[in-house]
Amino acid sequence: MGRLLALCATLFLLAGALPATAAHAEDGYDLWLRYRPLPAGLQTLDRGHATAIVADVDNRDPSVTKAAEELKRALGGMLGAAPAGTDIEAGAILLGTATDSRIRALGLPLASLGAEGYLIRSITIEGKPVTVIAANSGVGVLYGSFALIQRLQRGQPIDRLDIASTPKLKLRLLDHWDNLDRTVERGYAGQSIWDWWKLPDFKSQRYTDYARANASIGINGTVLNNVNAKADSLTAPYIAKAAALADVFRPYGIKVYLSARWSAPIELGHLKTADPLDPAVAAWWKTKADEIYAAIPDFGGFLVKANSEGQPGPQDYHRNHAQGANMLAAAVKPHGGIIMWRAFVYAQENPEDRAKQAYDDFKPLDGQFADNVIVQVKNGAIDFQPREPFHPLFGAMPKTPLMMEFQITKEYLGMATHLVYLGPLYEETLQADTWAHGKGSTVAKVIDGTLDHHALTGMAGVANIGSDRDWSGSTFNQANWFVFGRMAWNPDASAKAVAGEWSELTFGPDPQITAPVTDMMTISREAVVNYMEPLGLAHMMGTSHHYGPAPWVHELARPEWNPVYYHKADSTGIGFDRTRTSNAVAQYAPKVAAMFADPRTTPERDLLWFHHVAWDARMASGKTLWEELVAHYTLGVAQVADMHAKWRTLAPLIDPERYAKTDVFLSVQLREAQWWRDACLAYFMSVSGRPLPPGEAPPARTLTDYEAISFPYEPGR
Amino acid sequence: MGRLLALCATLFLLAGALPATAAHAEDGYDLWLRYRPLPAGLQTLDRGHATAIVADVDNRDPSVTKAAEELKRALGGMLGAAPAGTDIEAGAILLGTATDSRIRALGLPLASLGAEGYLIRSITIEGKPVTVIAANSGVGVLYGSFALIQRLQRGQPIDRLDIASTPKLKLRLLDHWDNLDRTVERGYAGQSIWDWWKLPDFKSQRYTDYARANASIGINGTVLNNVNAKADSLTAPYIAKAAALADVFRPYGIKVYLSARWSAPIELGHLKTADPLDPAVAAWWKTKADEIYAAIPDFGGFLVKANSEGQPGPQDYHRNHAQGANMLAAAVKPHGGIIMWRAFVYAQENPEDRAKQAYDDFKPLDGQFADNVIVQVKNGAIDFQPREPFHPLFGAMPKTPLMMEFQITKEYLGMATHLVYLGPLYEETLQADTWAHGKGSTVAKVIDGTLDHHALTGMAGVANIGSDRDWSGSTFNQANWFVFGRMAWNPDASAKAVAGEWSELTFGPDPQITAPVTDMMTISREAVVNYMEPLGLAHMMGTSHHYGPAPWVHELARPEWNPVYYHKADSTGIGFDRTRTSNAVAQYAPKVAAMFADPRTTPERDLLWFHHVAWDARMASGKTLWEELVAHYTLGVAQVADMHAKWRTLAPLIDPERYAKTDVFLSVQLREAQWWRDACLAYFMSVSGRPLPPGEAPPARTLTDYEAISFPYEPGR
Repeated sequence: MGRLLALCATLFLLAGALPATAAHAEDGYDLWLRYRPLPAGLQTLDRGHATAIVADVDNRDPSVTKAAEELKRALGGMLGAAPAGTDIEAGAILLGTATDSRIRALGLPLASLGAEGYLIRSITIEGKPVTVIAANSGVGVLYGSFALIQRLQRGQPIDRLDIASTPKLKLRLLDHWDNLDRTVERGYAGQSIWDWWKLPDFKSQRYTDYARANASIGINGTVLNNVNAKADSLTAPYIAKAAALADVFRPYGIKVYLSARWSAPIELGHLKTADPLDPAVAAWWKTKADEIYAAIPDFGGFLVKANSEGQPGPQDYHRNHAQGANMLAAAVKPHGGIIMWRAFVYAQENPEDRAKQAYDDFKPLDGQFADNVIVQVKNGAIDFQPREPFHPLFGAMPKTPLMMEFQITKEYLGMATHLVYLGPLYEETLQADTWAHGKGSTVAKVIDGTLDHHALTGMAGVANIGSDRDWSGSTFNQANWFVFGRMAWNPDASAKAVAGEWSELTFGPDPQITAPVTDMMTISREAVVNYMEPLGLAHMMGTSHHYGPAPWVHELARPEWNPVYYHKADSTGIGFDRTRTSNAVAQYAPKVAAMFADPRTTPERDLLWFHHVAWDARMASGKTLWEELVAHYTLGVAQVADMHAKWRTLAPLIDPERYAKTDVFLSVQLREAQWWRDACLAYFMSVSGRPLPPGEAPPARTLTDYEAISFPYEPGR
Repeated sequence: MGRLLALCATLFLLAGALPATAAHAEDGYDLWLRYRPLPAGLQTLDRGHATAIVADVDNRDPSVTKAAEELKRALGGMLGAAPAGTDIEAGAILLGTATDSRIRALGLPLASLGAEGYLIRSITIEGKPVTVIAANSGVGVLYGSFALIQRLQRGQPIDRLDIASTPKLKLRLLDHWDNLDRTVERGYAGQSIWDWWKLPDFKSQRYTDYARANASIGINGTVLNNVNAKADSLTAPYIAKAAALADVFRPYGIKVYLSARWSAPIELGHLKTADPLDPAVAAWWKTKADEIYAAIPDFGGFLVKANSEGQPGPQDYHRNHAQGANMLAAAVKPHGGIIMWRAFVYAQENPEDRAKQAYDDFKPLDGQFADNVIVQVKNGAIDFQPREPFHPLFGAMPKTPLMMEFQITKEYLGMATHLVYLGPLYEETLQADTWAHGKGSTVAKVIDGTLDHHALTGMAGVANIGSDRDWSGSTFNQANWFVFGRMAWNPDASAKAVAGEWSELTFGPDPQITAPVTDMMTISREAVVNYMEPLGLAHMMGTSHHYGPAPWVHELARPEWNPVYYHKADSTGIGFDRTRTSNAVAQYAPKVAAMFADPRTTPERDLLWFHHVAWDARMASGKTLWEELVAHYTLGVAQVADMHAKWRTLAPLIDPERYAKTDVFLSVQLREAQWWRDACLAYFMSVSGRPLPPGEAPPARTLTDYEAISFPYEPGR
């Protein structure tokens, strides 16, 4: 039966499979868990090592059950039939935790794996070759099972395995900026996947598949609602809805968290204040936490955006962030919960350089936070720009656990359609050296706790997941979710290696695909920097929507709302002097501060972030700054054209639906990269008074034309 | 190869198919076009009559190409393999239009089929038994092909066919109340399926599948945007987006229409007025129409909501609806376009009974509309309530073509989750006798043009389609889309027969499924009337969201915004006296008016719509009105419980995903039916001062409790 099915699977592939299902077989829903039949040769090899799936009889862990289910699904898909065996035999796969008698008997070195790590080893039991997947917890077994599955998907041998892997970070979370009306702030993939209206009654299959996808890359928590939170999310009906999701996610090792609105005690509890030092406020939060934990015993805790962009917070009562965070921390502490307190703060009434304000607020509080508080810091000091230097808080708060906040959704990066692989952005930040304790004090070491010996560690990614069939609005956006998971597991992972891995899982392990796809992905982030904001420029996008170019905007009420605040271009030069003017460089460790303080030692990629530079200043290339700026814009467009050309070579190798979608999106990206270049250069020509260097194509339209472009109804607001 | 594939298809079914695709094989996306393998016996029979698909070589009609594609897909799915043959052989299916030489040679009676009808006949060509699908147009061939496919799906024989069918209505349209920001007014199935942001570049596969589904039930037009229209939809970028959709839909016989904002000449054209008699206004619309037709040569025309619920319109300039409609009609006339002018008008400043206002405005204009204008009238005079008497305009404007506007989305009927099959509602309205030209002057005959000899005829349905995977928010909501199409093709279709047909297409032709599903569907509309608004009650839902019960609401600014305006319950009785007070009955033909004027001849189902009746009045059952009202509410709940019990018997027969979803939704419906009953009875007890009859369970909570219920973030607003 198994072989006949396998033959049929092959035949179906050849014949285009069942028409009704084939029509949406490659619509992106399966993400990197596609489990399509392997080539016949590999199937034959692998079948010998996948004859049975054996979950130890002692084991009642629901995560181990899910692991076995996933293995059956994956092996069934890839090998044509799921293994029929259920007991130890030659080729069996044995799953279990350290407490299972059969695993215990093997004497495997599990202690060093920690709570979530796993071990996969080819061993012999009673003379029979067996693959064991063991861990100290059910979810560790699940992670190991996904690791084994992914080896199979990638066509790698599974006959001589000795793999151990443990996550370096404790909290590996998605932050959903999902509102209760199902809109998603900065979401470009349809509505929120949480159908709040139908919860808790109806639990969509999508919730389970979301959990599977996250578990497959080690994500172990999800903040369900927007940091710009509504108090309603803390009412009984919404707690019940969150609990229903938590029930779905639990066996996949995923905890639910909520963003908490600071003023909820006033809005829901009818208190007169939300002062963290008011006992009634503390009591309200304690009762609320008890209520939540009664519904969700393993509730993770709260994420809080306070005193930023108009949100209420403890500073409204002349208390500081630590006082606010600690009050909440006390409420969840008896239940083992944590508080993630965001450091993304800037006040509209504060005239200080926006890039400095988070550090100014938080650095003095180092050591004052409770031990179940972790401060969540964005990768850069402004806001998820195509490139920012690492945030100066990293390395500056040794007594406080800091977690990374990356953005996975592409708020400033072309929204759904532009192909921008964020692995290089994440890697660049994580590998940046803070010099906090001398050379090698990378941001990765700050957040993995090794630099300052913190046990509470984490990384959060602002999710790019929505109701769109392909989850993330494009096939390549899925890669950003994937690489986030990989880097949350191991902040020292290689962006390029992860790109290749994702390509193999997503398009199949064909080197003819993997090589060009990896090339495209690797160059894509630099391309978007070049065509949007090269050489350290930032925040030049249109107001509100954050989509197209608008470096000319200068009339908004607050200085820091205007692109001109950030680039400060004038007839003499361009760039934000963060040495003499704001002295933001002083927020870095001395070695780093010295580097950034001098334009000659500042990397050119960050030059205009830190310095106002004359248009005619000479760059490393020998070009003037003006010439270099123009060259970068032009290069960005050319890089997109190159990506598109590479993709077109893959037409014969990629399924039609996914091929066509990416092809169309690359056309859009090319057109819009040109728009960014042309509009920015038209503007900078007008400011600098300089002509384009010879050979550079003039902007297609006039500056006035570009300024007049508007697009209502943009998504994500 | 074909037989081997067929064998494999069977094996895959047995084995649960390919795991990765099986996971979303029955997620509702396939609607009634599932094309799953037929039982082996039927496959063997049918294969003999599906050996080849032959589209006449002369034929270049894209609709015929689509017909052939659909047949291949359907036969491939149902029979295990698509027919291999491409020329006339025994068992071939020959497709073609009257102008094709091979069809012409057959001398078939095509003339009477009209532009869109089809003929399917089992014939012999050169001694070979062949099935011919012929029509006067490519889209007729497509319709015929779907008819043949549906016979196969339902397990009906296809060996001796002689079928001819012609639509009775010319315009068979969906009205999308979809906004440009992708929200959908009164939409409960996710976002708009139109991803405006990515159009015109990216044309989702979903657009094609939407067109297939519509063509399969004869729908031939779609109004893309909300009648509460934004002028932006008439700008060049949005015209390009509409054109991209029109390109996808064209081969499926579906024309694109747009809702036009009356004040667009001011908003876009910077005119000072939108007065229809101002030549500059007429010129603006003419130029705009020319611009649209340049992009969409077969553009259908405009739908207009004017001078209603705050929308601008010709009355702003003291012109009437005919003057407004005719000005627009002149703009599209050279291109063959039409204007659909909505009669759903009521003015907040008009103190007249809201039910009378449309008639008062439109009846005097009979005969004044241009010949390419059709007036679109809702089924009832208020607004898509669970039950309304037919609209008095039907039959009252003999010189004006009137088209029906039904609501398919369940604005007042429990939104996505309640199971309410609308076939009986449509049928009840269509079969209502207006007595305009004596007995038998049914609404169906008014709108199909036979009563007053109109060639321009139509039916519009406010779509229930969104971005949800299952299109319509629930499996059974799909049936409302389906029955709308069937009744737009033939307004005399039987709701019950269509329910059975839909069940067979959706769940397979198993009598054990079809019988209980048809029973559930048939009773469902009466159930919702009973548990929401029995005996002619209407408009008792909560403010704005139109979801839960709120008969107590009385404090809104305008009288007709309040439920108390509609039920007028007091200590003496309940109901809206439309005889002495408003004399709305006089808007009907004398025979009908006489019937509705007398409570003794008014059907009990409409009693309180027309009469204020004493609580102690005797009903046909011998019960008092109060007892009858309570009994209806209780019956409604019991009917839902019965539907749920019936569904649960189907657990072994329906695929798990669709079974579970409907099961959960029926639980929700049962809980909410109880809520409606209890809240309404708690209120009416308080007003009538009467206790519940013996044996009737008291409301679970107090009236104050029910009044306090609120639910923010409801969908569809």
